[in-house]
Amino acid sequence: MGRREGKKTLKFDAPPSIAAFAAVGGKKEGKGPLGGCFDFVYQDDSLGQSSWERAEVALQKEALQRSLDKAGTSKGEVDMIFAGDLTNQCIASAYGQRETDRPFFGLYGACSTMSEGMILAAMAIESGLARRAAALASSHFCTAERQFRMPLEYGGQRAPSAQWTATAAGAVLLEACGKGPYLTRACAGSIVDFGVRDMGNMGAAMAPAAFCTLFDFFSDTGSRPEEYDRIISGDLGRIGSEILCELFEKEGVNLAQKHSDCGCLLYDPATQDVHAGGSGCGCSAAVLCCDILPKLKDKRLGRVLFMPTGALMNNTAIQQGESIPGIAHLVELRAYLEES
Amino acid sequence: MGRREGKKTLKFDAPPSIAAFAAVGGKKEGKGPLGGCFDFVYQDDSLGQSSWERAEVALQKEALQRSLDKAGTSKGEVDMIFAGDLTNQCIASAYGQRETDRPFFGLYGACSTMSEGMILAAMAIESGLARRAAALASSHFCTAERQFRMPLEYGGQRAPSAQWTATAAGAVLLEACGKGPYLTRACAGSIVDFGVRDMGNMGAAMAPAAFCTLFDFFSDTGSRPEEYDRIISGDLGRIGSEILCELFEKEGVNLAQKHSDCGCLLYDPATQDVHAGGSGCGCSAAVLCCDILPKLKDKRLGRVLFMPTGALMNNTAIQQGESIPGIAHLVELRAYLEES
Repeated sequence: MGRREGKKTLKFDAPPSIAAFAAVGGKKEGKGPLGGCFDFVYQDDSLGQSSWERAEVALQKEALQRSLDKAGTSKGEVDMIFAGDLTNQCIASAYGQRETDRPFFGLYGACSTMSEGMILAAMAIESGLARRAAALASSHFCTAERQFRMPLEYGGQRAPSAQWTATAAGAVLLEACGKGPYLTRACAGSIVDFGVRDMGNMGAAMAPAAFCTLFDFFSDTGSRPEEYDRIISGDLGRIGSEILCELFEKEGVNLAQKHSDCGCLLYDPATQDVHAGGSGCGCSAAVLCCDILPKLKDKRLGRVLFMPTGALMNNTAIQQGESIPGIAHLVELRAYLEES
Repeated sequence: MGRREGKKTLKFDAPPSIAAFAAVGGKKEGKGPLGGCFDFVYQDDSLGQSSWERAEVALQKEALQRSLDKAGTSKGEVDMIFAGDLTNQCIASAYGQRETDRPFFGLYGACSTMSEGMILAAMAIESGLARRAAALASSHFCTAERQFRMPLEYGGQRAPSAQWTATAAGAVLLEACGKGPYLTRACAGSIVDFGVRDMGNMGAAMAPAAFCTLFDFFSDTGSRPEEYDRIISGDLGRIGSEILCELFEKEGVNLAQKHSDCGCLLYDPATQDVHAGGSGCGCSAAVLCCDILPKLKDKRLGRVLFMPTGALMNNTAIQQGESIPGIAHLVELRAYLEES
């Protein structure tokens, strides 16, 4: 039986092990600093499909299949799948999983979906109701642009504070017993809205949610940034990351020493014009699976906090003058169990 | 620790108890056969808000608050909230929960959301990571019409096979120990797509998913329809219900004797023109909370299977010629634990 630590932190009694993980990405992502770490990079972002939406479906299926292949297992051995994406009604996940015949839980956590799925998968394993569960998330630049912003053909200009939706997907396979890395603790986020209304500055909208979740986790567990090798937020980009570190500075905590952000890791700001950084469910999912988990697996990293962040608005809400609520779900990942 | 029974069925070792539940609805729902059972019926479907989306937000908040009031508890005592709706990016849930400061898991299961949330809430309690968790879902006729179909002002005609999205919300509060009703078993659905492409006939698109989940549950547990007082699907409407019963007939199982459907229960076909029946996440959520759970609570029902169904497409997918994938999540509810 797991238990709660402090107010919101979840502590797994038998921390699930991450049996396998895989990341696939598009051409631009392949040219970034992590390009060589992806399991597969598509040179054509259509993935040979007749629509961008079908391309994202294919992307997500490929990530799951590669994680299964790496674990030497098959879909039939997965007890539950937790998946989500940014498309309206999450169709990349629904169409991506319609042939798997596995119990499916559709999620909407915007760019926080990867850790939302990992927490639920870990909870399912802790409850004894699943032995093996998959968490996956995807995004595609072209499906996101035409849905949230402009038709691609329009060539609309982007604000300097805007982020670039990654064409990428990541899949993680968790199991009850294994050699790690382990998901040891988690802190599921609450919705936080500080009143930011600018759709072109998601980092600022999500930073307060990241602050609240991380602050709750530190308070609940009595831990400090120094205890972690890296604290990696998802998709805050450069502006959101600065705000997050500033908010901690005001609390007398030096987060910057350990902090990095998936939105800043995926692209090279010198050669790739993504303005404030990367975003999209697939951004943090892919960075987790091509950079963080490999390093935990071969013990180059010992303890990591991984905290994707999501912005929970839609176009209609923004047109109605609403502000942008944010959320951040945190998981603690460890290379060794004996460290605890 | 819970365990799996057969291939897909989840059996809760310490079945969570449903501490409280509440249903709120709009004017049309209030005039239906269950109108007198709602906790509150709004006479103005705008709920006094400046947009339909804000009205749905208010509807969902009201359902949760009323369930908390009935349990004699407050938001602070809820360890996790599982919520979803039909709006793009599930904003009714996100904006509805932005002031609760509780760990929030956003779901997208279309009209199956209520049972998806209940399964996850039960799993969280079974894992020991939550003592008390809420599951909620909402829909609003006017947010759904303009998003999925036509501007209301256009007055578009509806096909006879079309269903009417309910303006309603339901909230269920589960806890580790209590006097019931109990959530004893569950069967999380897989995505099933039999190739139906007609957005005006969702019942037909979802019926195969309902069949698969229920068939899996019967196979896994060795149980039969006769063992239940009622087997209630969500939102198949009249056409989908007929297909579901026909599919079971072909397997030699008489489902019709025990079967009813939330989409057929919410409105009176003689006096309310909803064509093939009701639909929307709020339809099954409200029918559960205003009809099924009250009868389980005062022991007028002993054993019930509740199985909301969802159609997982979006407008873009349909425009691209895709078929409609369906899903159905089942929960077994019992008035007494000693019956097991």
